[in-house]
Amino acid sequence: MNTADLGLPVSVPSTALFTDQYEFTMLQAALKAGTADRRSVFEVFTRRLPEGRRYGVVAGTGRVLDAVENFRFDEGVLGYLRDQGIVDEPTLRWLAGYRFGGDIHGYPEGEVYFPGSPVLRVEGSFAECVLLETVILSVLNHDSAIAAAASRMSAAAAGRRLIEMGARRTHELAAVAAARAAYVGGFHATSDLAAGFRYGIPTVGTSAHAFTLLHDTERDAFRAQVDSLGRGTTLLVDTYDVTEAVRTAVEIAGTGLGAVRIDSGDLLMVAHRVRRQLDDLGARDTKIVVTSDLDEYAIASLAAAPVDAYGVGTQLVTGSGHPTCSMVYKLVARAGSAARDAPLVPVAKKSTGGKQSVGGCKWAARRRDEQGVAEAEVLGTGPVPKSLVDRQLLTQLVKGGEVVAREPLDAARERHVAARTALPISATQLSRGEPVIPTEYLM
Amino acid sequence: MNTADLGLPVSVPSTALFTDQYEFTMLQAALKAGTADRRSVFEVFTRRLPEGRRYGVVAGTGRVLDAVENFRFDEGVLGYLRDQGIVDEPTLRWLAGYRFGGDIHGYPEGEVYFPGSPVLRVEGSFAECVLLETVILSVLNHDSAIAAAASRMSAAAAGRRLIEMGARRTHELAAVAAARAAYVGGFHATSDLAAGFRYGIPTVGTSAHAFTLLHDTERDAFRAQVDSLGRGTTLLVDTYDVTEAVRTAVEIAGTGLGAVRIDSGDLLMVAHRVRRQLDDLGARDTKIVVTSDLDEYAIASLAAAPVDAYGVGTQLVTGSGHPTCSMVYKLVARAGSAARDAPLVPVAKKSTGGKQSVGGCKWAARRRDEQGVAEAEVLGTGPVPKSLVDRQLLTQLVKGGEVVAREPLDAARERHVAARTALPISATQLSRGEPVIPTEYLM
Repeated sequence: MNTADLGLPVSVPSTALFTDQYEFTMLQAALKAGTADRRSVFEVFTRRLPEGRRYGVVAGTGRVLDAVENFRFDEGVLGYLRDQGIVDEPTLRWLAGYRFGGDIHGYPEGEVYFPGSPVLRVEGSFAECVLLETVILSVLNHDSAIAAAASRMSAAAAGRRLIEMGARRTHELAAVAAARAAYVGGFHATSDLAAGFRYGIPTVGTSAHAFTLLHDTERDAFRAQVDSLGRGTTLLVDTYDVTEAVRTAVEIAGTGLGAVRIDSGDLLMVAHRVRRQLDDLGARDTKIVVTSDLDEYAIASLAAAPVDAYGVGTQLVTGSGHPTCSMVYKLVARAGSAARDAPLVPVAKKSTGGKQSVGGCKWAARRRDEQGVAEAEVLGTGPVPKSLVDRQLLTQLVKGGEVVAREPLDAARERHVAARTALPISATQLSRGEPVIPTEYLM
Repeated sequence: MNTADLGLPVSVPSTALFTDQYEFTMLQAALKAGTADRRSVFEVFTRRLPEGRRYGVVAGTGRVLDAVENFRFDEGVLGYLRDQGIVDEPTLRWLAGYRFGGDIHGYPEGEVYFPGSPVLRVEGSFAECVLLETVILSVLNHDSAIAAAASRMSAAAAGRRLIEMGARRTHELAAVAAARAAYVGGFHATSDLAAGFRYGIPTVGTSAHAFTLLHDTERDAFRAQVDSLGRGTTLLVDTYDVTEAVRTAVEIAGTGLGAVRIDSGDLLMVAHRVRRQLDDLGARDTKIVVTSDLDEYAIASLAAAPVDAYGVGTQLVTGSGHPTCSMVYKLVARAGSAARDAPLVPVAKKSTGGKQSVGGCKWAARRRDEQGVAEAEVLGTGPVPKSLVDRQLLTQLVKGGEVVAREPLDAARERHVAARTALPISATQLSRGEPVIPTEYLM
């Protein structure tokens, strides 16, 4: 894959430094101790969902594949590690030839997950796997947090159009990933052109208050916008007086005006008033877009309002109260020697304090009832029960270092709808609750 | 400036698509209407601080300068805008020659701010300024949120060492900016090698639980680590039993062991126990590093514990409850015509609903009492009172499109300490409160 295709408008020549220093020092120590080649299995999972959330959404899997493919060490990176004395010469030589050659399985992108779900499993030598911890977690923790918020908003919007417009509220590149994750979670479009450019997500946007203020009158501004962008444009009507603005808008654009946008005030009340006014003026097909500090609760509260589309910013790109997931990357099994056929031994941290993990390489399946509704997330380390063989969740993403499961973003988006629909209906209740299905362990 | 120096390990050939679509459509409409060349002033400010916070911290200014310098349109970007029909041909021709040629003033990086503070002022033609809205806000909203959290943690740590280790909890490139902002806010080091590479921030790290679990015994793991990294390393002692691990650690590394790290359990109690044990074993200089889900409150609660360094992840990179600031980029004044000498007219949105802004190009100064303690953030549009001339906060960053105020990151870090120290002492109380000084308008 051409690296230029990877992160445009920002190209990522290498993802090898999106790494915590300890991964390199562990590598060095393991190389010296002769344990670096022990076959190892790392799993990504969360111990719990964010408080009150009923399901999680896997997002970022496609970006993980990009990151793994481009995890290479060029002279610039090796020179930095050498100059800083971060690792020794034997380790630098090992890194120079690095290329992940192992296997990765994972929940496909858009799938839902629950506490303990092994959303990603990375297998290979300890050395090749340990280096990927940080970059994999960065991608999955960020993207899944945004997708989870997007999914709740999309359930609340009940089919109405959702526009992601939070780029200005988050890091400029996090914004591109956020638009991608929001699309997976059910959003329809983004204002972020970098996301359109990189991922082909539909983009939208017309004007801000600055455009109205630039002109001598609101009428001048509306005329300038309609002259340039056509009657189908969306006019922003809350710079001065909404009622006057709506009247002016229809006078200038005619009843074929595309939409009006309301960005302040009591949206419920204003939307009703504007709808009546538009209808009275004959602009029955003119849509209403609302965009002021929305979250899933505000969207739900507007369900009965005559609103056609929601623009969501801050609360979407910050995960609506939960800007990150608590996914961890844990060694769950490893061989007792570097021999190729050495059997895997389950391992787990044992300290108290809520940070225990469950050892062993796990399969995962979602058990459904007779109506096809999910009833449990079942995880196990032994053989998969016959009844669950067809319900398994992990699919192979990387085989011997080669990515084998690229897919268009729309596939993840559709998968998410299907997965959410198969959950018990209380999954999409916005009120705080427990995970909508329990996690069961068959060990 | 070589663009390769900009965002490594990710090079940013152009920042021109970190832009919301409406900025381009407003440009097109203004070009057609003949209003694009009106001289304009945009200000970046927040209407309020995050709930309960007593001051904000400006961070990201240096990154804003990078972004403005590299806001250019190459064929790839123009081709995308053309293919998607986002703007028309005259606009594309205008964009092809784009280079910001105006002036930017701002609060210097590391300075504190309050509601209304004009932390950045961008002046030029409407056309050249309007395009910068999103990228400027992305950088400042993200970086300032992290720096504010870092500053509170740094006040709570009262001089003890603070290590940023949140890369895995946020987008991989947001992580690099977060490490930078944390450094400005008072952190001493980062685990993120990309941040070390890009910004020269000191990096640290030794090992994770996976390293212990990889080996047949904890003793094997400690020996491997000390063999490779030396006695001065930090051994992670909470994989199995902390007391046993500390004993083993000192047996293997001797009393010259650098440090032990505790990543779970009741840190207060465990730190005391471990300190006593280390002292009893003669390892009086061995330091204790704690790293489990810390925030400023947890850090403060450990003030009396024998802890030498704190590693902070999630709560730092997510802004400790406030992952973004609510900075906006508003047109506050513009000329009434495109004539070079047309006077500026203050403008402001007038709708109700808490989104009003104060028109006019503002100066800002921090008034101090006789002891030199800050007592008010004073903003005005008229002449600066004589007593405040020396207290002005805005400095020129860009002049006629040229960056004139680059500085090393340490300058911002030192400035922050000085600025915070000059606030009333209640500024660093962790409890919720109002902004520690009021904002006064002289209009």
